[in-house]
Amino acid sequence: MEKDKEKSLEWVIPALITLLNERGKIDFRLLEKQIEYLSSAGVHGFFINGTTGEGPYLTRDEKIMVYKHVREATGDKQLLCAACINPSTDMTIEEIHAFEALEPDFFVAVTPYYYEVPQEVIENHYRRIASASPFHIIMYNIPQCTHNKIEFETILNLTSEHNIRGIKDSSGDFITFSRGHEDVFPEHFSWIQGEDFLDGASLILGAHGLVTGLGNIWIEPYVELYREAKRGNASKVNDNQNKINRLYEIIRVTDGKAIPSIKAAVSLLGRSEKWTRLQSYELSNEETAKVKDVLSDLELL
Amino acid sequence: MEKDKEKSLEWVIPALITLLNERGKIDFRLLEKQIEYLSSAGVHGFFINGTTGEGPYLTRDEKIMVYKHVREATGDKQLLCAACINPSTDMTIEEIHAFEALEPDFFVAVTPYYYEVPQEVIENHYRRIASASPFHIIMYNIPQCTHNKIEFETILNLTSEHNIRGIKDSSGDFITFSRGHEDVFPEHFSWIQGEDFLDGASLILGAHGLVTGLGNIWIEPYVELYREAKRGNASKVNDNQNKINRLYEIIRVTDGKAIPSIKAAVSLLGRSEKWTRLQSYELSNEETAKVKDVLSDLELL
Amino acid sequence: MEKDKEKSLEWVIPALITLLNERGKIDFRLLEKQIEYLSSAGVHGFFINGTTGEGPYLTRDEKIMVYKHVREATGDKQLLCAACINPSTDMTIEEIHAFEALEPDFFVAVTPYYYEVPQEVIENHYRRIASASPFHIIMYNIPQCTHNKIEFETILNLTSEHNIRGIKDSSGDFITFSRGHEDVFPEHFSWIQGEDFLDGASLILGAHGLVTGLGNIWIEPYVELYREAKRGNASKVNDNQNKINRLYEIIRVTDGKAIPSIKAAVSLLGRSEKWTRLQSYELSNEETAKVKDVLSDLELL
Amino acid sequence: MEKDKEKSLEWVIPALITLLNERGKIDFRLLEKQIEYLSSAGVHGFFINGTTGEGPYLTRDEKIMVYKHVREATGDKQLLCAACINPSTDMTIEEIHAFEALEPDFFVAVTPYYYEVPQEVIENHYRRIASASPFHIIMYNIPQCTHNKIEFETILNLTSEHNIRGIKDSSGDFITFSRGHEDVFPEHFSWIQGEDFLDGASLILGAHGLVTGLGNIWIEPYVELYREAKRGNASKVNDNQNKINRLYEIIRVTDGKAIPSIKAAVSLLGRSEKWTRLQSYELSNEETAKVKDVLSDLELL
Repeated sequence: MEKDKEKSLEWVIPALITLLNERGKIDFRLLEKQIEYLSSAGVHGFFINGTTGEGPYLTRDEKIMVYKHVREATGDKQLLCAACINPSTDMTIEEIHAFEALEPDFFVAVTPYYYEVPQEVIENHYRRIASASPFHIIMYNIPQCTHNKIEFETILNLTSEHNIRGIKDSSGDFITFSRGHEDVFPEHFSWIQGEDFLDGASLILGAHGLVTGLGNIWIEPYVELYREAKRGNASKVNDNQNKINRLYEIIRVTDGKAIPSIKAAVSLLGRSEKWTRLQSYELSNEETAKVKDVLSDLELL
Repeated sequence: MEKDKEKSLEWVIPALITLLNERGKIDFRLLEKQIEYLSSAGVHGFFINGTTGEGPYLTRDEKIMVYKHVREATGDKQLLCAACINPSTDMTIEEIHAFEALEPDFFVAVTPYYYEVPQEVIENHYRRIASASPFHIIMYNIPQCTHNKIEFETILNLTSEHNIRGIKDSSGDFITFSRGHEDVFPEHFSWIQGEDFLDGASLILGAHGLVTGLGNIWIEPYVELYREAKRGNASKVNDNQNKINRLYEIIRVTDGKAIPSIKAAVSLLGRSEKWTRLQSYELSNEETAKVKDVLSDLELL
Repeated sequence: MEKDKEKSLEWVIPALITLLNERGKIDFRLLEKQIEYLSSAGVHGFFINGTTGEGPYLTRDEKIMVYKHVREATGDKQLLCAACINPSTDMTIEEIHAFEALEPDFFVAVTPYYYEVPQEVIENHYRRIASASPFHIIMYNIPQCTHNKIEFETILNLTSEHNIRGIKDSSGDFITFSRGHEDVFPEHFSWIQGEDFLDGASLILGAHGLVTGLGNIWIEPYVELYREAKRGNASKVNDNQNKINRLYEIIRVTDGKAIPSIKAAVSLLGRSEKWTRLQSYELSNEETAKVKDVLSDLELL
Repeated sequence: MEKDKEKSLEWVIPALITLLNERGKIDFRLLEKQIEYLSSAGVHGFFINGTTGEGPYLTRDEKIMVYKHVREATGDKQLLCAACINPSTDMTIEEIHAFEALEPDFFVAVTPYYYEVPQEVIENHYRRIASASPFHIIMYNIPQCTHNKIEFETILNLTSEHNIRGIKDSSGDFITFSRGHEDVFPEHFSWIQGEDFLDGASLILGAHGLVTGLGNIWIEPYVELYREAKRGNASKVNDNQNKINRLYEIIRVTDGKAIPSIKAAVSLLGRSEKWTRLQSYELSNEETAKVKDVLSDLELL
């Protein structure tokens, strides 16, 4: 644990896509190619088996295999966050045990989902996870998927758990997020933006880092944005945020099919194939053409 | 399959709670007691491992054990619906294979969840499930949990799949549900109400049956309501609907904690214990007292 | 007031469209034609200056003129409901005073709108209106427009005001509406369905009447549905509800442009022109063609 | 018009509360006191008869009287925005004519409300207003009240109207708002934040100004925040945003009763009375005590 204590979650962390072949199986060769691209651009670590990584649709064995491959590919240099998207407290704790030998730097847990639950259940969920976990825990707020938002007061309460080390907020609710800069969080607690549109403003306000799914396509403006924010150069932060906003168009042009769009774009750049775990969730040729146009406009193709 | 073809989904089907002990393990003795209560009141079958049954939080082994016990307890007399609450198409099909030897009368599948998906993905999800399944499939529309509603047009399209035999609609959206009485469904297709407040109106309009979670507490008014609806006696349907509405108060008085409230009520009646799989999701003493008051008002205690 | 006391709100009440010419002015000749059509089909009264009547966009003078014309055209035979769509309590009371000499049978008031308000404000709003009004008051629940829903408990509380004589519920929330058949309302209180999809089920459950905007196009199935519901003939109620559901398609085919669709349809039948008060809110030629197809399928054209 | 052309909407603009006495009438003496407080703190202008000003519940005459008093009190030094909260295009244009002689620097119009309308109707609404108006028009996006959001693409389209000079965005949707820094707006177009939680981030990203209702209580941190943002001092911007966030607590502690809370607070500071136009919308003594606590914590009392 000594090692983990020194690492803190910050900087630019891509939410790695899970590369699949036509039969829906993981393509580890492509996975390495994608890791290589992101690492050489200067990312600080990887967020594995998350929402972008189709984690909820992967088996536990698959999640462990992906994790091991990424660790092998990155060595000990980079920070690895093992996301656990499981609907109940028990299932999450079971997965913690399954990852025990792998010693991820951070174990990232969503709220319960399927059932709508009150905040006290969310709070107890994280307390039980925290006390069961030998790893540092990151809370993952993504109410558009779990439909259980972690309220600001719940976050505050949970900072008292010593091994809850931060929150990744993908809610897109900047009002709640921005309350984090009120110096209310303890020093060991990281405050991570997970909605790409909000990266610039968040880092300027003092957020510790960003996790990005879109960055699988083009990670450079995220790395640049992070650096400029740390220098306090708002104008250059804006320039990079503009690039990210333009990249976001690949999701708008497909009416919100986020994962298929990201995979289509990375495919066009030669580092993925288009297949997703939800087999019928594909882009039409027309939609793929629109994604291509966005990449061309950005001179990525 | 011959046998199944003759059965159609109709009548009163309780969504069986999964009886747990303090350690969260299934209590099969209580399970039998509950089945005995419901069977002797005249229900037509059982809906197993559904939302009320905490299906999303049970392991596959647990779901199979519960199913086997219910089959054993009921013999071949009653219709068994095996609910499968799994987030992806593949996981659902995997569970169909796991249930293959058990030959449930109906296999009930929700839409994909966690991710928001367009209707075409929902349609393909059910088509792939239907073609993989040796059993009759029932669609389960519960957007308050899956956040992916099955639209009316999608239901209509899917009636062309011969072994999709009906829909259980727990959405509470009576406008969409009521469009089902337009004689648009084929004869082999059952149209089942899953929202207790809407049972009376639905059966009068011609719905084939109802699935109820609340009925675990007190099944008699549901059985009575069904019979009176089939006789066209609207006034007696209303009387029974009123009793159901009054029973529904146990959920209102706890601000919507449905499963803990149902379990608390069945416990007060001596056929359950209060424990749920989501361990921190309990009623306070005050809330339990309110549940008790509702039961007393109904002279169930 | 003696006269009013004997009238109760029930039966079929069309929510009259406000007939406009190309310059946006009221066309009283067409208004009479439309009243004539509806009256001869056997409606019980008229709902004037409501949501379908574009009430919120009419001036007070216009509302009074429309009211006077309808009264003149119908004599004293029919029940007239003067809808008042005004955002505040004071403005509503002011309008009551403006209508004083006209003695409408019922004065229909929405909740406050623009601001979101708690239920206690809604309750006080109606209490103040009730005590200021010489007429019987009907509450108008239309949260899709006012964004302030009248909760069931608030309705119950307000039944203690002797001159609040009913509620018109256009919310489409059948669960709340259906709680009204629990014999909880006093005898002088009318319970009126305002969502056409729900008419059949509501009347079978014991609702007193229906208000319909779509009925401007084709009122016969509503009148028939009402009669069959009173006879307890569920099958014929369903037949008429099916016709209404098919008529509803004119709104679906235009993606929810309700008023332009209704006006287009009545125009095609020769009793209106297409103009609305919100001048840029028109159907395209393509949309008008779709409306025409729906009418043709129903053999109205 | 020459004069207006040179003014651009920017800086700190309080959305003036409308001071009322117990009988609901405007108290001009208090109004002047409040203007004096805000002016001497260095605001750039006033936003009059807006949502905070209870504009939708004021008569046209009242709105004109308030406007005239503010103009008189401020002379020609300050920029005046006349808000017009009216539900239809015609009513808005009528109000423009009523304000014609008063020559406000900006006339601020909301979208149509009560009815839900598509974006094309919103676009035509503003085009018709723009061509009817001798003043510069500001669009006012407040979907929590109008329930018709102005989409980003609609804003972009409307920048082609030369006398539409900006947008005040009170939606709280920072994702859409932040797209404004993409250099897509013409130079004469102002981009104003109306949600206090988002002021700091918005101004750092390049927004032109802020309109604040909460600032009626304590305007100093807003003025300071604006200055520091223009200097690019993110840390001092954060300090002031923190003060604003703490001030925001007065609304949280009353469960969102924004106007009553603001008026209660300004009353405690001796520049208002507690009365609102929606008479039953008051704070309880308990709630007022909580508001007082927030002010005490901020050392304003």
